[in-house]
Amino acid sequence: MVIELTKRQKKIIEIVKNNEPISSEKIAEKLGVIRATLRPDLSILTMSGILDARPKVGYFYSGKSDINVFSQEAEKYLVEDVMKMPVVVTEDSTIYDAIVTLFLEDTGTIYVVANNYLSGVVSRKDFLKTLMGGGDMNKMPVGMIMTRMPNLATVTKNETIIEAANRIVENEVDSLPVVEVMEENGKERLKVIGKVSKSNITELFVNLCKK
Amino acid sequence: MVIELTKRQKKIIEIVKNNEPISSEKIAEKLGVIRATLRPDLSILTMSGILDARPKVGYFYSGKSDINVFSQEAEKYLVEDVMKMPVVVTEDSTIYDAIVTLFLEDTGTIYVVANNYLSGVVSRKDFLKTLMGGGDMNKMPVGMIMTRMPNLATVTKNETIIEAANRIVENEVDSLPVVEVMEENGKERLKVIGKVSKSNITELFVNLCKK
Repeated sequence: MVIELTKRQKKIIEIVKNNEPISSEKIAEKLGVIRATLRPDLSILTMSGILDARPKVGYFYSGKSDINVFSQEAEKYLVEDVMKMPVVVTEDSTIYDAIVTLFLEDTGTIYVVANNYLSGVVSRKDFLKTLMGGGDMNKMPVGMIMTRMPNLATVTKNETIIEAANRIVENEVDSLPVVEVMEENGKERLKVIGKVSKSNITELFVNLCKK
Repeated sequence: MVIELTKRQKKIIEIVKNNEPISSEKIAEKLGVIRATLRPDLSILTMSGILDARPKVGYFYSGKSDINVFSQEAEKYLVEDVMKMPVVVTEDSTIYDAIVTLFLEDTGTIYVVANNYLSGVVSRKDFLKTLMGGGDMNKMPVGMIMTRMPNLATVTKNETIIEAANRIVENEVDSLPVVEVMEENGKERLKVIGKVSKSNITELFVNLCKK
């Protein structure tokens, strides 16, 4: 629930900030009104947590007015709520086959697996660079040009979208593979179960604004 | 300012919804408390606009509790607040030169101009398609492979980020050119002054959540 503070409520906050602890009588005096007039304002300001009231001492400013409504709303969304199906090829696929897959699936990033576990990521940019360099795309496997584990940013389905968005921005990537962490022979392996991208976050942004 | 409603306040909303108009005496009766107990709750609920109070009639439910805090916050941001510098080439540039520019500027989309006005857009995807098709990138101009006006989604700097995000999602593009609309010989021309992309929106999302 959102309340737009009135002018008087904002004045009260200022008075308390500068004079804490201060009694309701003193606040009323400074505003030139009677105590009863302030009662609803003070109950709103204490119930919202902006002011603290201590019996026989007075009102304190709690500093809580800076609550971030945006993240309160956004942090309800988990990666699993918005993730899409990943597009996956095996490490020995030729670059040509991988590019064909890229166009067929109309995606910007492909995840590469070896023995069913995540081994790398390859994007339009990597393919373009390879073609510009004149590599033989019918012979070279994607494994040769992909960004390889463990240099990959990933996310799990139970993390929040805020955490995913942060990681996308920090790592300057378009998407993150959503992974399940497994153990095999004492080694950590990642199974790719989804994909979360800037597109998902832009869509979520639009939907949150419509809701 | 955000207030978490108490259980009793939520109950009051339900009672008013189902019995409007209803007096404070009747609400108190239904809750088994005295009227004075309800006074702070009722003033919070009316000040926030969730309930309407009409003298001698009673309380009404205004339906305002569904205020969208998310869009209230997001719509303060205009395109000009987050837009980046656009990367621009002329329509007669070779595809090779345009791809080199793409890598030098580390961008995913290039805007194409003719006589200083927007004439098209070309992306990594277009380049990759051309190279796969075996075109001679040293001879072909970008004008041959770009998406051409008027089939382009654009945005102006005074529109909100919400409008820009909407247009990005609807048109399934990665970015929009930010344009100034000019007139030349009675014709509408667009001058490119910026770029707004899914990356900007993802960054804004992260920043709004941190703030």
